[in-house]
Amino acid sequence: MKPGILAVDIGGKNLKIRHSDHEERRKAPTGPDFSAQDAVTTIRELAHDWSWDRLTIGCPGPISNNRLLLEPHNLGGGWKDMDFASAFDCEVRLVNDAVMQAIASHAGGKMLFLGLGTGLGAALVVENIAMPLEVAHLPYRDKYTYEDCIGRRGLDRLGRKAWEEAVHDITARLRKALVADCVVIGGGALKKLRHMPEHATPGDNANAFEGGFRVWRDHYRLF
Amino acid sequence: MKPGILAVDIGGKNLKIRHSDHEERRKAPTGPDFSAQDAVTTIRELAHDWSWDRLTIGCPGPISNNRLLLEPHNLGGGWKDMDFASAFDCEVRLVNDAVMQAIASHAGGKMLFLGLGTGLGAALVVENIAMPLEVAHLPYRDKYTYEDCIGRRGLDRLGRKAWEEAVHDITARLRKALVADCVVIGGGALKKLRHMPEHATPGDNANAFEGGFRVWRDHYRLF
Repeated sequence: MKPGILAVDIGGKNLKIRHSDHEERRKAPTGPDFSAQDAVTTIRELAHDWSWDRLTIGCPGPISNNRLLLEPHNLGGGWKDMDFASAFDCEVRLVNDAVMQAIASHAGGKMLFLGLGTGLGAALVVENIAMPLEVAHLPYRDKYTYEDCIGRRGLDRLGRKAWEEAVHDITARLRKALVADCVVIGGGALKKLRHMPEHATPGDNANAFEGGFRVWRDHYRLF
Repeated sequence: MKPGILAVDIGGKNLKIRHSDHEERRKAPTGPDFSAQDAVTTIRELAHDWSWDRLTIGCPGPISNNRLLLEPHNLGGGWKDMDFASAFDCEVRLVNDAVMQAIASHAGGKMLFLGLGTGLGAALVVENIAMPLEVAHLPYRDKYTYEDCIGRRGLDRLGRKAWEEAVHDITARLRKALVADCVVIGGGALKKLRHMPEHATPGDNANAFEGGFRVWRDHYRLF
Protein backbone atom coordinates (compact mmCIF):
# COMPACT_ATOMS: atom_id res chain seq x y z
CA MET A 1 0.00 0.00 0.00
CA LYS A 2 1.47 3.36 -0.94
CA PRO A 3 2.00 5.86 1.87
CA GLY A 4 -0.59 8.52 2.53
CA ILE A 5 -1.84 10.91 5.18
CA LEU A 6 -3.35 9.90 8.50
CA ALA A 7 -5.64 12.52 10.06
CA VAL A 8 -6.50 12.27 13.76
CA ASP A 9 -9.14 14.29 15.60
CA ILE A 10 -8.79 14.16 19.39
CA GLY A 11 -11.70 15.37 21.51
CA GLY A 12 -12.87 15.02 25.10
CA LYS A 13 -15.05 12.00 24.25
CA ASN A 14 -13.44 10.27 21.25
CA LEU A 15 -10.29 9.94 19.22
CA LYS A 16 -11.18 9.57 15.53
CA ILE A 17 -8.95 8.70 12.61
CA ARG A 18 -9.15 8.55 8.83
CA HIS A 19 -6.61 7.70 6.14
CA SER A 20 -6.43 9.80 2.96
CA ASP A 21 -6.93 6.69 0.78
CA HIS A 22 -9.81 5.15 2.73
CA GLU A 23 -13.39 6.24 3.33
CA GLU A 24 -13.57 4.33 6.61
CA ARG A 25 -13.46 6.26 9.87
CA ARG A 26 -12.33 4.58 13.06
CA LYS A 27 -12.65 5.73 16.63
CA ALA A 28 -11.89 4.94 20.26
CA PRO A 29 -13.10 6.56 23.49
CA THR A 30 -11.01 9.18 25.33
CA GLY A 31 -11.85 10.95 28.63
CA PRO A 32 -10.36 12.93 31.52
CA ASP A 33 -7.59 10.34 32.12
CA PHE A 34 -6.62 9.90 28.48
CA SER A 35 -2.92 10.81 28.27
CA ALA A 36 -0.72 11.74 25.31
CA GLN A 37 0.91 8.28 25.59
CA ASP A 38 -2.59 6.73 25.42
CA ALA A 39 -3.14 8.73 22.23
CA VAL A 40 0.05 7.32 20.65
CA THR A 41 -0.94 3.76 21.58
CA THR A 42 -4.56 4.22 20.42
CA ILE A 43 -3.56 5.73 17.07
CA ARG A 44 -1.11 2.83 16.46
CA GLU A 45 -3.80 0.27 17.27
CA LEU A 46 -6.60 1.91 15.26
CA ALA A 47 -4.38 2.35 12.20
CA HIS A 48 -2.41 -0.89 12.51
CA ASP A 49 -3.21 -2.08 8.97
CA TRP A 50 -2.74 1.30 7.26
CA SER A 51 0.55 2.86 6.18
CA TRP A 52 1.21 6.57 5.97
CA ASP A 53 4.15 8.94 5.82
CA ARG A 54 2.42 12.11 7.01
CA LEU A 55 0.32 12.55 10.14
CA THR A 56 -1.95 15.41 11.21
CA ILE A 57 -3.16 15.47 14.81
CA GLY A 58 -5.93 17.93 15.67
CA CYS A 59 -6.32 18.56 19.36
CA PRO A 60 -7.75 21.22 21.67
CA GLY A 61 -5.53 24.02 22.96
CA PRO A 62 -2.81 26.41 21.84
CA ILE A 63 0.06 24.93 19.82
CA SER A 64 3.43 26.35 18.82
CA ASN A 65 6.16 24.61 16.84
CA ASN A 66 4.30 21.29 16.87
CA ARG A 67 3.97 21.29 20.68
CA LEU A 68 0.95 21.92 22.88
CA LEU A 69 1.57 24.93 25.13
CA LEU A 70 -0.99 23.86 27.75
CA GLU A 71 -2.36 20.51 28.89
CA PRO A 72 -5.83 20.19 27.29
CA HIS A 73 -8.89 20.49 29.53
CA ASN A 74 -10.97 17.29 29.57
CA LEU A 75 -8.01 15.02 28.82
CA GLY A 76 -5.24 13.38 30.87
CA GLY A 77 -1.58 14.46 31.10
CA GLY A 78 1.68 14.34 29.21
CA TRP A 79 0.56 16.41 26.21
CA LYS A 80 2.92 19.35 26.64
CA ASP A 81 5.98 17.10 26.68
CA MET A 82 4.93 14.69 23.95
CA ASP A 83 7.01 14.75 20.76
CA PHE A 84 4.63 13.06 18.32
CA ALA A 85 7.09 13.23 15.42
CA SER A 86 9.57 11.06 17.36
CA ALA A 87 6.83 8.78 18.68
CA PHE A 88 5.63 7.96 15.14
CA ASP A 89 8.94 8.46 13.33
CA CYS A 90 7.24 10.38 10.52
CA GLU A 91 6.37 13.93 9.55
CA VAL A 92 3.74 15.27 11.96
CA ARG A 93 1.65 18.43 12.08
CA LEU A 94 0.04 19.10 15.44
CA VAL A 95 -2.92 21.41 14.77
CA ASN A 96 -5.45 23.16 16.97
CA ASP A 97 -8.80 21.41 16.43
CA ALA A 98 -10.60 24.59 15.35
CA VAL A 99 -7.81 25.31 12.85
CA MET A 100 -8.15 21.80 11.37
CA GLN A 101 -11.91 22.28 10.93
CA ALA A 102 -11.34 25.77 9.52
CA ILE A 103 -8.91 24.51 6.87
CA ALA A 104 -11.42 21.80 5.92
CA SER A 105 -13.99 24.52 5.10
CA HIS A 106 -11.73 27.11 3.51
CA ALA A 107 -12.82 28.00 -0.02
CA GLY A 108 -10.83 31.21 -0.54
CA GLY A 109 -10.87 34.72 0.87
CA LYS A 110 -10.13 35.75 4.41
CA MET A 111 -12.30 33.39 6.43
CA LEU A 112 -13.26 33.44 10.10
CA PHE A 113 -14.20 30.03 11.51
CA LEU A 114 -16.37 29.76 14.62
CA GLY A 115 -16.93 26.36 16.24
CA LEU A 116 -20.05 26.24 18.44
CA GLY A 117 -19.56 23.35 20.82
CA THR A 118 -19.14 23.04 24.58
CA GLY A 119 -16.82 26.01 24.25
CA LEU A 120 -16.22 28.42 21.38
CA GLY A 121 -13.38 27.57 19.00
CA ALA A 122 -12.14 30.05 16.43
CA ALA A 123 -9.59 30.40 13.65
CA LEU A 124 -8.65 32.75 10.83
CA VAL A 125 -7.58 31.44 7.40
CA VAL A 126 -6.30 33.53 4.50
CA GLU A 127 -4.72 32.05 1.36
CA ASN A 128 -2.74 29.10 2.76
CA ILE A 129 -2.15 30.64 6.18
CA ALA A 130 -4.11 29.39 9.20
CA MET A 131 -4.10 30.97 12.65
CA PRO A 132 -5.91 29.91 15.82
CA LEU A 133 -7.88 32.55 17.72
CA GLU A 134 -8.65 32.45 21.44
CA VAL A 135 -11.54 34.91 21.44
CA ALA A 136 -13.83 32.75 23.60
CA HIS A 137 -12.90 34.48 26.86
CA LEU A 138 -13.03 38.10 25.70
CA PRO A 139 -15.75 40.19 27.39
CA TYR A 140 -19.06 40.45 25.52
CA ARG A 141 -21.87 41.85 27.65
CA ASP A 142 -22.57 42.31 31.36
CA LYS A 143 -20.21 39.88 33.09
CA TYR A 144 -20.32 37.38 30.26
CA THR A 145 -17.72 36.38 27.69
CA TYR A 146 -18.44 35.33 24.09
CA GLU A 147 -18.21 31.68 25.16
CA ASP A 148 -20.53 32.27 28.14
CA CYS A 149 -23.18 33.43 25.66
CA ILE A 150 -22.80 31.21 22.59
CA GLY A 151 -21.08 28.12 24.01
CA ARG A 152 -23.06 25.31 25.65
CA ARG A 153 -23.61 27.27 28.89
CA GLY A 154 -25.04 30.16 26.86
CA LEU A 155 -27.51 27.91 25.09
CA ASP A 156 -28.67 26.49 28.45
CA ARG A 157 -28.88 29.88 30.15
CA LEU A 158 -30.39 31.97 27.35
CA GLY A 159 -32.63 29.44 25.60
CA ARG A 160 -32.42 28.68 21.87
CA LYS A 161 -33.90 31.91 20.53
CA ALA A 162 -31.79 34.38 22.53
CA TRP A 163 -28.75 32.13 21.97
CA GLU A 164 -29.31 32.35 18.21
CA GLU A 165 -29.57 36.15 18.45
CA ALA A 166 -26.26 36.20 20.33
CA VAL A 167 -24.67 33.96 17.67
CA HIS A 168 -25.78 36.41 14.96
CA ASP A 169 -24.57 39.46 16.88
CA ILE A 170 -21.20 37.94 17.85
CA THR A 171 -20.59 36.61 14.33
CA ALA A 172 -21.13 40.10 12.90
CA ARG A 173 -18.90 41.77 15.51
CA LEU A 174 -16.02 39.31 15.15
CA ARG A 175 -16.18 39.32 11.35
CA LYS A 176 -15.84 43.10 11.40
CA ALA A 177 -13.10 43.10 14.08
CA LEU A 178 -11.00 40.59 12.13
CA VAL A 179 -11.81 42.22 8.78
CA ALA A 180 -12.85 38.83 7.39
CA ASP A 181 -14.62 38.39 4.05
CA CYS A 182 -16.69 35.44 5.22
CA VAL A 183 -17.49 33.23 8.19
CA VAL A 184 -17.89 29.46 8.43
CA ILE A 185 -19.77 28.15 11.46
CA GLY A 186 -19.19 24.59 12.63
CA GLY A 187 -19.43 22.61 15.84
CA GLY A 188 -22.04 20.42 17.47
CA ALA A 189 -24.50 23.27 18.12
CA LEU A 190 -24.56 24.38 14.47
CA LYS A 191 -27.72 22.31 13.93
CA LYS A 192 -29.58 24.43 16.52
CA LEU A 193 -29.30 27.56 14.34
CA ARG A 194 -32.51 28.26 12.35
CA HIS A 195 -30.85 30.89 10.14
CA MET A 196 -27.23 31.48 9.20
CA PRO A 197 -25.81 34.90 10.13
CA GLU A 198 -25.02 37.32 7.28
CA HIS A 199 -21.88 36.39 5.29
CA ALA A 200 -21.79 33.01 7.08
CA THR A 201 -22.07 29.47 5.73
CA PRO A 202 -22.34 26.19 7.63
CA GLY A 203 -19.28 23.97 7.95
CA ASP A 204 -19.40 20.20 7.58
CA ASN A 205 -18.60 18.78 11.01
CA ALA A 206 -17.98 15.30 9.60
CA ASN A 207 -15.31 16.83 7.43
CA ALA A 208 -12.59 17.83 9.91
CA PHE A 209 -10.32 15.08 8.53
CA GLU A 210 -10.27 16.92 5.21
CA GLY A 211 -8.46 19.76 7.02
CA GLY A 212 -5.87 17.25 8.19
CA PHE A 213 -5.27 16.15 4.59
CA ARG A 214 -5.28 19.68 3.14
CA VAL A 215 -2.58 20.83 5.59
CA TRP A 216 -0.20 18.67 3.52
CA ARG A 217 -1.80 18.73 0.08
CA ASP A 218 -2.39 22.47 -0.09
CA HIS A 219 0.68 23.43 1.98
CA TYR A 220 -1.18 25.29 4.70
CA ARG A 221 1.15 27.12 7.02
CA LEU A 222 0.19 27.20 10.68
CA PHE A 223 0.91 30.22 12.87
CA MET B 1 18.21 60.03 -10.15
CA LYS B 2 17.37 56.32 -10.03
CA PRO B 3 13.79 55.39 -9.16
CA GLY B 4 12.90 54.49 -5.61
CA ILE B 5 9.96 54.20 -3.24
CA LEU B 6 7.79 57.09 -2.10
CA ALA B 7 6.02 56.53 1.24
CA VAL B 8 3.04 58.72 2.14
CA ASP B 9 1.35 58.90 5.54
CA ILE B 10 -2.07 60.59 5.45
CA GLY B 11 -3.63 61.64 8.75
CA GLY B 12 -6.39 64.00 9.89
CA LYS B 13 -3.93 66.87 10.39
CA ASN B 14 -1.04 66.31 7.97
CA LEU B 15 0.06 64.47 4.87
CA LYS B 16 3.71 63.46 5.22
CA ILE B 17 6.05 61.98 2.63
CA ARG B 18 9.52 60.49 2.49
CA HIS B 19 11.58 59.03 -0.36
CA SER B 20 13.56 55.82 0.19
CA ASP B 21 16.79 57.52 -0.93
CA HIS B 22 16.40 60.74 1.08
CA GLU B 23 16.41 61.48 4.80
CA GLU B 24 14.24 64.56 4.33
CA ARG B 25 10.59 64.41 5.36
CA ARG B 26 8.09 66.82 3.83
CA LYS B 27 4.55 67.61 4.89
CA ALA B 28 1.43 69.61 4.13
CA PRO B 29 -1.74 70.20 6.17
CA THR B 30 -4.89 68.12 5.60
CA GLY B 31 -8.27 68.51 7.40
CA PRO B 32 -11.97 67.64 7.18
CA ASP B 33 -12.26 68.99 3.59
CA PHE B 34 -9.11 67.32 2.28
CA SER B 35 -10.25 65.12 -0.63
CA ALA B 36 -8.53 62.21 -2.39
CA GLN B 37 -7.91 64.54 -5.36
CA ASP B 38 -6.26 67.01 -2.95
CA ALA B 39 -4.03 64.16 -1.82
CA VAL B 40 -2.94 63.40 -5.38
CA THR B 41 -2.18 67.09 -6.04
CA THR B 42 -0.37 67.54 -2.71
CA ILE B 43 1.79 64.41 -3.17
CA ARG B 44 2.77 65.56 -6.68
CA GLU B 45 3.72 69.03 -5.38
CA LEU B 46 5.64 67.85 -2.32
CA ALA B 47 7.60 65.25 -4.31
CA HIS B 48 8.02 67.30 -7.50
CA ASP B 49 11.84 66.96 -7.57
CA TRP B 50 11.96 63.27 -6.60
CA SER B 51 11.47 60.29 -8.90
CA TRP B 52 10.10 56.95 -7.83
CA ASP B 53 8.57 53.87 -9.40
CA ARG B 54 6.76 52.47 -6.35
CA LEU B 55 4.37 54.32 -4.06
CA THR B 56 2.94 53.32 -0.68
CA ILE B 57 0.04 55.35 0.69
CA GLY B 58 -0.92 54.78 4.32
CA CYS B 59 -4.34 56.10 5.23
CA PRO B 60 -7.02 55.51 7.86
CA GLY B 61 -9.80 53.00 7.24
CA PRO B 62 -10.41 49.53 5.83
CA ILE B 63 -8.80 48.74 2.45
CA SER B 64 -9.33 45.89 0.02
CA ASN B 65 -7.63 45.39 -3.34
CA ASN B 66 -5.92 48.79 -3.18
CA ARG B 67 -9.23 50.64 -2.61
CA LEU B 68 -10.63 52.24 0.53
CA LEU B 69 -13.92 50.59 1.49
CA LEU B 70 -15.17 53.59 3.48
CA GLU B 71 -14.58 57.35 3.26
CA PRO B 72 -12.12 58.17 6.10
CA HIS B 73 -13.43 60.06 9.12
CA ASN B 74 -11.72 63.47 9.54
CA LEU B 75 -10.96 63.85 5.83
CA GLY B 76 -12.91 65.07 2.78
CA GLY B 77 -14.48 62.95 0.03
CA GLY B 78 -13.60 60.97 -3.09
CA TRP B 79 -11.43 58.38 -1.35
CA LYS B 80 -13.52 55.30 -2.12
CA ASP B 81 -13.52 56.00 -5.84
CA MET B 82 -9.90 57.09 -6.20
CA ASP B 83 -7.66 54.83 -8.26
CA PHE B 84 -4.23 56.00 -7.07
CA ALA B 85 -2.36 53.62 -9.40
CA SER B 86 -3.92 55.33 -12.43
CA ALA B 87 -3.50 58.81 -10.92
CA PHE B 88 0.25 58.31 -10.49
CA ASP B 89 0.82 55.85 -13.34
CA CYS B 90 3.03 53.65 -11.17
CA GLU B 91 2.79 50.66 -8.86
CA VAL B 92 0.83 51.65 -5.75
CA ARG B 93 0.09 49.92 -2.47
CA LEU B 94 -2.71 51.49 -0.48
CA VAL B 95 -2.22 50.41 3.15
CA ASN B 96 -4.17 50.96 6.35
CA ASP B 97 -2.15 53.38 8.50
CA ALA B 98 -1.92 50.99 11.47
CA VAL B 99 -0.71 48.24 9.12
CA MET B 100 2.03 50.54 7.72
CA GLN B 101 3.22 51.36 11.27
CA ALA B 102 3.03 47.68 12.23
CA ILE B 103 5.22 46.60 9.31
CA ALA B 104 7.74 49.31 10.26
CA SER B 105 8.12 47.71 13.70
CA HIS B 106 7.98 44.04 12.76
CA ALA B 107 11.08 42.14 13.89
CA GLY B 108 9.80 38.56 13.53
CA GLY B 109 7.24 36.38 15.24
CA LYS B 110 3.49 36.85 15.30
CA MET B 111 3.16 40.49 16.29
CA LEU B 112 0.13 42.45 17.44
CA PHE B 113 0.40 46.20 16.83
CA LEU B 114 -1.71 48.64 18.86
CA GLY B 115 -1.72 52.34 17.95
CA LEU B 116 -2.82 54.58 20.83
CA GLY B 117 -3.97 57.83 19.26
CA THR B 118 -7.30 59.61 19.00
CA GLY B 119 -8.72 56.19 18.27
CA LEU B 120 -7.26 52.71 18.60
CA GLY B 121 -5.55 51.27 15.52
CA ALA B 122 -4.52 47.64 15.36
CA ALA B 123 -2.84 45.14 13.05
CA LEU B 124 -1.46 41.62 13.08
CA VAL B 125 1.80 40.73 11.28
CA VAL B 126 3.25 37.25 10.89
CA GLU B 127 6.18 36.45 8.59
CA ASN B 128 5.54 38.72 5.59
CA ILE B 129 1.77 38.79 5.99
CA ALA B 130 0.06 41.90 7.39
CA MET B 131 -3.59 42.17 8.36
CA PRO B 132 -5.56 45.13 9.71
CA LEU B 133 -7.73 44.59 12.78
CA GLU B 134 -10.80 46.63 13.69
CA VAL B 135 -10.96 45.73 17.37
CA ALA B 136 -11.47 49.32 18.58
CA HIS B 137 -15.25 49.04 18.75
CA LEU B 138 -15.57 45.63 20.43
CA PRO B 139 -17.13 45.72 23.89
CA TYR B 140 -14.72 45.91 26.82
CA ARG B 141 -16.40 46.79 30.12
CA ASP B 142 -19.68 48.36 31.22
CA LYS B 143 -20.94 50.22 28.14
CA TYR B 144 -17.45 51.02 26.91
CA THR B 145 -15.46 49.68 23.97
CA TYR B 146 -11.68 49.18 23.88
CA GLU B 147 -11.31 52.53 22.10
CA ASP B 148 -13.59 54.27 24.66
CA CYS B 149 -11.13 53.20 27.36
CA ILE B 150 -7.67 53.46 25.81
CA GLY B 151 -8.20 55.96 22.97
CA ARG B 152 -8.09 59.73 23.59
CA ARG B 153 -11.56 59.80 25.19
CA GLY B 154 -10.48 57.08 27.63
CA LEU B 155 -7.42 59.04 28.70
CA ASP B 156 -9.57 62.14 29.30
CA ARG B 157 -12.30 60.24 31.14
CA LEU B 158 -10.21 57.84 33.24
CA GLY B 159 -7.11 59.94 33.96
CA ARG B 160 -3.57 58.79 33.18
CA LYS B 161 -3.21 56.12 35.86
CA ALA B 162 -6.47 54.23 35.24
CA TRP B 163 -5.92 54.66 31.48
CA GLU B 164 -2.50 53.00 31.81
CA GLU B 165 -4.08 50.13 33.77
CA ALA B 166 -6.63 49.69 30.97
CA VAL B 167 -3.83 49.72 28.36
CA HIS B 168 -2.06 46.93 30.26
CA ASP B 169 -5.21 44.87 30.70
CA ILE B 170 -6.39 45.27 27.08
CA THR B 171 -2.92 44.53 25.67
CA ALA B 172 -2.81 41.26 27.63
CA ARG B 173 -6.33 40.27 26.58
CA LEU B 174 -5.85 41.01 22.89
CA ARG B 175 -2.42 39.35 22.76
CA LYS B 176 -3.97 36.19 24.18
CA ALA B 177 -7.07 36.37 21.93
CA LEU B 178 -4.95 36.73 18.79
CA VAL B 179 -2.37 34.19 20.00
CA ALA B 180 0.42 36.71 19.30
CA ASP B 181 4.02 36.23 20.45
CA CYS B 182 4.62 39.91 21.06
CA VAL B 183 3.01 43.34 20.97
CA VAL B 184 4.31 46.66 19.64
CA ILE B 185 2.59 49.79 20.95
CA GLY B 186 2.75 53.00 18.91
CA GLY B 187 0.68 56.13 18.45
CA GLY B 188 0.76 59.61 19.91
CA ALA B 189 -0.27 58.52 23.43
CA LEU B 190 2.59 55.99 23.72
CA LYS B 191 4.67 58.60 25.57
CA LYS B 192 2.05 58.76 28.35
CA LEU B 193 2.74 55.14 29.36
CA ARG B 194 5.07 54.89 32.40
CA HIS B 195 5.62 51.14 31.95
CA MET B 196 5.29 48.87 28.94
CA PRO B 197 2.81 45.99 29.27
CA GLU B 198 4.24 42.46 29.47
CA HIS B 199 5.54 41.13 26.12
CA ALA B 200 5.20 44.64 24.62
CA THR B 201 7.80 46.99 23.19
CA PRO B 202 7.39 50.61 22.09
CA GLY B 203 7.15 51.40 18.37
CA ASP B 204 8.93 54.32 16.77
CA ASN B 205 6.21 56.74 15.67
CA ALA B 206 8.61 58.68 13.44
CA ASN B 207 9.27 55.46 11.60
CA ALA B 208 5.98 54.75 9.80
CA PHE B 209 7.64 55.52 6.44
CA GLU B 210 9.90 52.50 6.98
CA GLY B 211 6.76 50.34 6.79
CA GLY B 212 5.98 51.93 3.44
CA PHE B 213 9.42 50.97 2.14
CA ARG B 214 9.39 47.47 3.64
CA VAL B 215 6.07 46.63 1.93
CA TRP B 216 8.11 46.56 -1.31
CA ARG B 217 11.58 45.55 -0.10
CA ASP B 218 10.47 42.66 2.10
CA HIS B 219 7.48 41.68 -0.06
CA TYR B 220 4.84 42.11 2.63
CA ARG B 221 1.47 40.79 1.55
CA LEU B 222 -1.57 42.76 2.69
CA PHE B 223 -4.83 41.01 3.58
